Amino acid sequence: MKTHILLITCNDQTGIVARVSGAIFQHGLNVIRNGEFVEQESSRFFMRTEVEGDLDESELLNELRSHLPPGAVVRLAEKREKRIIVFATKEPHCLGDLLVQCAFNNLNAEILSVVSNHNHLGSFVKNFGYPFHHIPHKGRSREEHEKAILELIEPDQVDYLVLAKYMRILTPEFVAQYQNRIINIHHSFLPAFVGANPYCQAFQRGVKIIGATAHFVNEGLDEGAIIAQNISPIDHQFGLNEIVRTGHNIEKMVLARALHLVLTDRVFVSGNKTIIFD
Amino acid sequence: MKTHILLITCNDQTGIVARVSGAIFQHGLNVIRNGEFVEQESSRFFMRTEVEGDLDESELLNELRSHLPPGAVVRLAEKREKRIIVFATKEPHCLGDLLVQCAFNNLNAEILSVVSNHNHLGSFVKNFGYPFHHIPHKGRSREEHEKAILELIEPDQVDYLVLAKYMRILTPEFVAQYQNRIINIHHSFLPAFVGANPYCQAFQRGVKIIGATAHFVNEGLDEGAIIAQNISPIDHQFGLNEIVRTGHNIEKMVLARALHLVLTDRVFVSGNKTIIFD
Amino acid sequence: MKTHILLITCNDQTGIVARVSGAIFQHGLNVIRNGEFVEQESSRFFMRTEVEGDLDESELLNELRSHLPPGAVVRLAEKREKRIIVFATKEPHCLGDLLVQCAFNNLNAEILSVVSNHNHLGSFVKNFGYPFHHIPHKGRSREEHEKAILELIEPDQVDYLVLAKYMRILTPEFVAQYQNRIINIHHSFLPAFVGANPYCQAFQRGVKIIGATAHFVNEGLDEGAIIAQNISPIDHQFGLNEIVRTGHNIEKMVLARALHLVLTDRVFVSGNKTIIFD
Amino acid sequence: MKTHILLITCNDQTGIVARVSGAIFQHGLNVIRNGEFVEQESSRFFMRTEVEGDLDESELLNELRSHLPPGAVVRLAEKREKRIIVFATKEPHCLGDLLVQCAFNNLNAEILSVVSNHNHLGSFVKNFGYPFHHIPHKGRSREEHEKAILELIEPDQVDYLVLAKYMRILTPEFVAQYQNRIINIHHSFLPAFVGANPYCQAFQRGVKIIGATAHFVNEGLDEGAIIAQNISPIDHQFGLNEIVRTGHNIEKMVLARALHLVLTDRVFVSGNKTIIFD
Repeated sequence: MKTHILLITCNDQTGIVARVSGAIFQHGLNVIRNGEFVEQESSRFFMRTEVEGDLDESELLNELRSHLPPGAVVRLAEKREKRIIVFATKEPHCLGDLLVQCAFNNLNAEILSVVSNHNHLGSFVKNFGYPFHHIPHKGRSREEHEKAILELIEPDQVDYLVLAKYMRILTPEFVAQYQNRIINIHHSFLPAFVGANPYCQAFQRGVKIIGATAHFVNEGLDEGAIIAQNISPIDHQFGLNEIVRTGHNIEKMVLARALHLVLTDRVFVSGNKTIIFD
Repeated sequence: MKTHILLITCNDQTGIVARVSGAIFQHGLNVIRNGEFVEQESSRFFMRTEVEGDLDESELLNELRSHLPPGAVVRLAEKREKRIIVFATKEPHCLGDLLVQCAFNNLNAEILSVVSNHNHLGSFVKNFGYPFHHIPHKGRSREEHEKAILELIEPDQVDYLVLAKYMRILTPEFVAQYQNRIINIHHSFLPAFVGANPYCQAFQRGVKIIGATAHFVNEGLDEGAIIAQNISPIDHQFGLNEIVRTGHNIEKMVLARALHLVLTDRVFVSGNKTIIFD
Repeated sequence: MKTHILLITCNDQTGIVARVSGAIFQHGLNVIRNGEFVEQESSRFFMRTEVEGDLDESELLNELRSHLPPGAVVRLAEKREKRIIVFATKEPHCLGDLLVQCAFNNLNAEILSVVSNHNHLGSFVKNFGYPFHHIPHKGRSREEHEKAILELIEPDQVDYLVLAKYMRILTPEFVAQYQNRIINIHHSFLPAFVGANPYCQAFQRGVKIIGATAHFVNEGLDEGAIIAQNISPIDHQFGLNEIVRTGHNIEKMVLARALHLVLTDRVFVSGNKTIIFD
Repeated sequence: MKTHILLITCNDQTGIVARVSGAIFQHGLNVIRNGEFVEQESSRFFMRTEVEGDLDESELLNELRSHLPPGAVVRLAEKREKRIIVFATKEPHCLGDLLVQCAFNNLNAEILSVVSNHNHLGSFVKNFGYPFHHIPHKGRSREEHEKAILELIEPDQVDYLVLAKYMRILTPEFVAQYQNRIINIHHSFLPAFVGANPYCQAFQRGVKIIGATAHFVNEGLDEGAIIAQNISPIDHQFGLNEIVRTGHNIEKMVLARALHLVLTDRVFVSGNKTIIFD
């Protein structure tokens, strides 16, 4: 039987769950998994429901909207592989992990292509059978560079852009075109060590734990809504190289975790926070 | 406004959420927090809902039962401090943590008394102002010992018995009288190292991580439904003493976590598993 | 047989380990545990050795100094309970944990007294049998307040001051009198969320992990050398209260861990870093 | 300047460190990193020292042996890439992680070939440019199957065999030929859930944490010396598929960690324990 994921965001109101679950029942759908959450500070209601059964999409959505406060966002996510483009620079660990996962259909995503400002990873990507686009930033202004990228990727019906250690800052204009659709992995436990060289900063500060953060990209540097974080203990014996080695393992785990959540439609964004039904 | 916690367990059926949330809405109650879960292997439905508002308890429960399959268990948990009796033997760390928490109302529990088969912790407990009952097991059969305990604790309207490093095995007869109401902390990552001296076993096996497990007590040794577990890394430099020291910290954290969950009515037991709405 | 802890810091040089371990051997001492570390960026050598046997302290130290570069710091730490004074404000969780540990000799410390700028914790501390000094800050300048504290604590031969959620910032003058001898627990994963209300900051930032940091206090706010850190995962369902509850458990674990290390002479400070032989 | 790793195991004796470090100094070698450990229960001494400088290997080793108790094992590990053969069955996650690491020289190993009892991973491996040997077990006795494997791998000067989710049990005879040179990843937190289907066992037991263990293979099932372990929290919402997905991430992290340690000569085996200088 076909499975659908119903995603609802609206202002909170008494009785929403009753009305929505009533409508689902009347359409003869079976609830497999259900989650609701009310964010107190914004008085916003979030709901994610996996249902099983045959449905007329527009009919169901229209009825649901009739039960919800004005401005409600209601959508049915298709349970399908998402279409992603991966951005990388020179480091292979996060990209490699995604390529291996996709090679065995473990990511719920189809990689359309890999874009890089360097040529370093080209033959590696091509061995996996994916297109690799080298778009150098040298000799181009930031705007020209992004324009070249956009020309390349816009024709694709891409769902998400994944920055798998892409070491360029995107302009607000670029980001605006893919709102809440660009996922970055930052190699620190944000908000600690924003910006460049977080491992170097961590080494110099003498922290006992390092981490990584996967987040949506917004116009502020490393300020977008956090999707996943994880950490690993270190000690004074860790030189910078060992911190980096340890960190790379966390980065790839955290990015994989965040992508799993996003690509299976489990993540809502509310301001600079995520609400995750995992 | 008054807050109530509604707890429902029944066989799964299409439309339960719709009917229950409809009834809650019709009673003019506001849902603050809501969780549902269907255990696939048992086809059992579990629901925990925090609602706000005035209600007629028996009227609400009767109506809810009328909407649910036969055999449904429905109850309203009062949002109140639970009444607990703590059992200990000689080690103070878990007991001490509970006493400190209760001294500042951080546990959602009232400690009625502390029971021990040794006198070791007596003055410590009394300094906190709680009754301490020394019921030695020496010279008594297991049945006589438990009988003495039962005579002491039965008059109390106790909600839960907390075994805070109580180093005696309870008989199935004793356990049966407090089904799913006895919580134990075991000093290993169950099911590893069941039984006696788990730290010694861990030392001898050369594991790189040790742990602790809080679980409900049933008739099998260390086999009851697990509520919470946590771990800490160790290495070859850890002698048995250092393993024990590290372990004690995990034990008290895990027990505190499990008690927080149980004492705020977040835990359902289903067979040998727990379903936790945290 | 008596155990001693030998602690050496000096500029690095080829052959130090050979000369030091030769001298230890010639004095007929048995090495139980030994650790060395060279900090590359400072070219400093650190060594901690536990030895067993009878020794003439000044003779051994003099000989060791003769083998080491000029400026070497060599000392024998007595293996004894350290003398500490605990500072707190209103929150009991860290203080309570220390009191319970000390009550059963698990901290390698003797608590001389507890100092607080509020009266809130007074009877709690007195029930454990320790002196409690309420030194209010209200109506006093920061300098007057610290002067009152210093007058109280200076007569004691105190080894360390432990800030167990003491919510006052100490002046550089105060700190200078107890260099590398004041240990603070900060309720965030430093350097994230420096300063006031870190849990509130964490809540607003939408992080997925919170943490705590135990560090030596220096003249900069939350900038002293870090001794221990730990974290706990949270999610969007955690309101501020639940973040605080979760955080309190981490705080007490991290402070206990840091104190264990410091009070057993395992921690060297090098600039804003710690070198820990655990 | 050239770097060497000196590895010593012998019965403990007073003065060993002094004599060994004296000899190192006399040979004009500079100690970069040094670790010693005495295992109390076996009275065995372990030492790992990284030194810098020119040396005459046999001269140094002979001198060191003259300073050590009879039976001492002393060797100089070359700081070079180790030669490994990877065994896999059908699952790609651990193997893929190793292939990506090796493709960018991050593992300190050269993969000589990949051996599998299935053909499933063949084209994947070949895309990375490594030989893939499909040696089916069907229609062969265990001895015949292992004989075919041995014939294939014996000509290679292999340092370690890495079982990256190789789902066959090796005979004691096979294991004996590669003592302490076969590394396995087991998908549970050993000693919990020995043997087949540990994730299924974990699901049925209702644990709140799952884990993975990398260990040397010996003649007992899942009983060899543990090198690395790690865990991930789960809850009642995790079905078996989600447990497996989560577990796979831990497996690849733990195996990568263990291999890093082994392949850089940081691991001693003592009975069923490892001593690790990381």
